[in-house]
Amino acid sequence: MSLSTIAIQDTYPEDFAHCFGCGRNNSEGHGFKTIADGLATRTVHTADPTYRGAGDFAYGGLIASLIDCHSAASAAIFWMHDQGLAVGSETAPRFVTARLEVDYVAPTPLGELVVVGTAVEVHDRKVIVTSELTHQGVTTARGRAVLVRVT
Amino acid sequence: MSLSTIAIQDTYPEDFAHCFGCGRNNSEGHGFKTIADGLATRTVHTADPTYRGAGDFAYGGLIASLIDCHSAASAAIFWMHDQGLAVGSETAPRFVTARLEVDYVAPTPLGELVVVGTAVEVHDRKVIVTSELTHQGVTTARGRAVLVRVT
Repeated sequence: MSLSTIAIQDTYPEDFAHCFGCGRNNSEGHGFKTIADGLATRTVHTADPTYRGAGDFAYGGLIASLIDCHSAASAAIFWMHDQGLAVGSETAPRFVTARLEVDYVAPTPLGELVVVGTAVEVHDRKVIVTSELTHQGVTTARGRAVLVRVT
Repeated sequence: MSLSTIAIQDTYPEDFAHCFGCGRNNSEGHGFKTIADGLATRTVHTADPTYRGAGDFAYGGLIASLIDCHSAASAAIFWMHDQGLAVGSETAPRFVTARLEVDYVAPTPLGELVVVGTAVEVHDRKVIVTSELTHQGVTTARGRAVLVRVT
């Protein structure tokens, strides 16, 4: 697996490219972008004050959304690499979430958030991903997701 | 516990009333509203096409956000009733999510979504809530959340 600057979301099938979280064709959405980074995956997102919850912290739904889309994107990246395919070499497969778990270990400040994903299991139709979300190097949330391939 | 038409979010402390998901003071947010309904809680939300994922289905992040805010609101309602307090009789306590689990059992169409919450455990500082999300009577997602009281 190699570092790639191509976001997997930019290679999703056209029918799956308008997701509010990560669709390149949804101008109102978050526009999450996920890249391969060594054996891991990475999504960087700047949370703005619109999406705050209590005080100057991000609301829980943003964190869940970020981990959800990041996990689906990571599943596609891990699946492609498992097949010997580089991101960007062809249209990416699309995974959807069957189960999402988020542990909110500390309040997540607004600003730049980094999510790093790790492959736990990679099968032809099913991938399990764990994720760690950090703000300025401090872990504030952890995720685990079970994803199912639909394209 | 009795039926109440007062949304618990309308009685949250002012410092906790600008959440993107459910804050009465966030004009750009979803504005989720949760009421007590017998022994359960209920949040009804109409998902519009902005928040679609694949096809004409809601994106996973919206479902997670809805279940997250609904669970925190449900925790406050269950806690108040456990204390013998009616919703609206005083400022509600505010719970935040420590852990969120969502099972996406079927794609969730856009349109009117109904989430019903059940109390699993109610303690002074911690409440556990399970939730079922339906569209036109069909269950499309289930949630379980652990909430911690912060006010």
